[in-house]
Amino acid sequence: MAHDEFSLIRQWTSRSAGQEGNGLSVGIGDDAAVFSPSPGMEVVACCDAMAETVHFLRETMKPSDIGYKAVISNISDVAAMGGIARFALVSIAVPPHWTAAECREIYDGIYEACAAYGVRVIGGDTVAAPDALHLSVTVLGEVEKGRALRRSGARPGQLVFVTGHLGGSAAGLHLLLQTRDAGARVPSEWSELVACHQRPAAQIEAGRLLLASGAAGALNDISDGLASELWEIAEASGVSLVVDAAQVPMHEATRAYAAQAGRDPLDWALYGGEDYQLAGTVDPAGAETLARQCAQSGISFRIIGRVEKGGPSVTLCRDGVCGPMAKAGYNHFAQAD
Amino acid sequence: MAHDEFSLIRQWTSRSAGQEGNGLSVGIGDDAAVFSPSPGMEVVACCDAMAETVHFLRETMKPSDIGYKAVISNISDVAAMGGIARFALVSIAVPPHWTAAECREIYDGIYEACAAYGVRVIGGDTVAAPDALHLSVTVLGEVEKGRALRRSGARPGQLVFVTGHLGGSAAGLHLLLQTRDAGARVPSEWSELVACHQRPAAQIEAGRLLLASGAAGALNDISDGLASELWEIAEASGVSLVVDAAQVPMHEATRAYAAQAGRDPLDWALYGGEDYQLAGTVDPAGAETLARQCAQSGISFRIIGRVEKGGPSVTLCRDGVCGPMAKAGYNHFAQAD
Repeated sequence: MAHDEFSLIRQWTSRSAGQEGNGLSVGIGDDAAVFSPSPGMEVVACCDAMAETVHFLRETMKPSDIGYKAVISNISDVAAMGGIARFALVSIAVPPHWTAAECREIYDGIYEACAAYGVRVIGGDTVAAPDALHLSVTVLGEVEKGRALRRSGARPGQLVFVTGHLGGSAAGLHLLLQTRDAGARVPSEWSELVACHQRPAAQIEAGRLLLASGAAGALNDISDGLASELWEIAEASGVSLVVDAAQVPMHEATRAYAAQAGRDPLDWALYGGEDYQLAGTVDPAGAETLARQCAQSGISFRIIGRVEKGGPSVTLCRDGVCGPMAKAGYNHFAQAD
Repeated sequence: MAHDEFSLIRQWTSRSAGQEGNGLSVGIGDDAAVFSPSPGMEVVACCDAMAETVHFLRETMKPSDIGYKAVISNISDVAAMGGIARFALVSIAVPPHWTAAECREIYDGIYEACAAYGVRVIGGDTVAAPDALHLSVTVLGEVEKGRALRRSGARPGQLVFVTGHLGGSAAGLHLLLQTRDAGARVPSEWSELVACHQRPAAQIEAGRLLLASGAAGALNDISDGLASELWEIAEASGVSLVVDAAQVPMHEATRAYAAQAGRDPLDWALYGGEDYQLAGTVDPAGAETLARQCAQSGISFRIIGRVEKGGPSVTLCRDGVCGPMAKAGYNHFAQAD
């Protein structure tokens, strides 16, 4: 990419310059940004990297989707602490075969996701890459002091829950890869699944309800699949989780597409990842109130199991048979076989 | 890189797990880290990315140097705000041709730089890359509320200063590339220049002295060369800077190596970059005290020019002839011709 194009990208990426205020003392455009958390709040900080061909393919994600999802995956980590997201730093490495126009589309997606969650871009870096596009996003948020929800908070006697529906992102990716391989277009009847994969949502509101309830135990966001996230909770908390497969929530479209594709939709729910829903544990006494509050906000809140002593382990019960839930994650680009 | 090797890297990278305390509520190992700035302080946040072949070559930088320098370049940005560095998030994308042992060496360098500046690694991401290694580091620091030093703080009547010596990093890179091309080893007489390139220092202490003095105007760190940084100050502040070439501080080794290589050392000082010294402006009344305080801390503090009305412009005077200082930066890997 030519030097002039880099200048264009830098101009484009600094569109939030001059938006100081509301705790932000120095925004984008200096050596560093400067801000204060709100009174009574701590800073929440996380960072996720995505590499072309490893985390996304140009055939399955538009440039704007790539930018959008990179931000969402970080906001989702803030949601998993019970926090709210406030600021983002975006570091992008651009190889020669990406045009300045495509980079602008990536930033369109980045700014769209930020706008949807009240996040301001306060810094970052734009550099050249030899061959593959890399995107690394840091999101800074805040949470009430001493109240962040951790993976280690699960206690025996609590219930295991998930928000929303699982497996939709993996189903959407399977569909996108199948239609790419067939040289076809995605049938409009499956557009919901494509949206699950390309434009996921972060569950900030659910995380805030959980924190406010005082009933939450452990919390994790589902980036690598439910199985992986539940194992992290079991190991960090030193408990055993027992999950009822019949209760794992999936969209009707996910089940229908799985039936058509000859797949088990539960595999996508457990091992697909990138659903960015929340999984965690709650005190039984608070579960009903939480479910009602979530429903009032249009959020599905489903009890899928219970926390027991022992472990760390995760057990899956399906059709009356219980056994260890496999820990492995999914290899995204090896699935469309 | 195999999955097992990734697990090894993840274990290696989380060596600071469990080091909570001193404002850090949640360290590495959860979805996000949680911390509070110290009382009366704001958060300083910056992010720099480095890509293999673009920002470093394996022939000129050991893996540990790459990690070290990636952290220093960010701490230097915090220094340029007058702040102190506290936390780092490290995002690394590793291609198949890098071994797990080499990645450990990168992290050795990262942790070495962090230890030298009191910085704790609190998060990050380790992912696969298709071909080139990418390293993106976010450093979070703090600075007294409302007192961060900005590029826009230069005022007519102030003096232009730089800390330390310039051009050493570019001289060291030139030397490393020349000896690589000749298949030779670097003569030990030039080891100081190699260290300037591979193991730069960040000027946190000088930044703190400047902030405390109350005499500082604008401040920038020299990552892209003095010319580029002074132009940023001139443009952000709306002033004209006039610099005396004879006052630009350079190591004797830089001058000696330039003479041997048939180069003008001033080119390296103005356009070489990666010296990570500070450049800025100060009130004349405070300059002498600051120079004395810096000297007491072993820091060279040199007045190299003055701030005038008008501009934005940067003028270089050399041997009685004054003209505009070129704005362009240096193309690192095109210089060893």
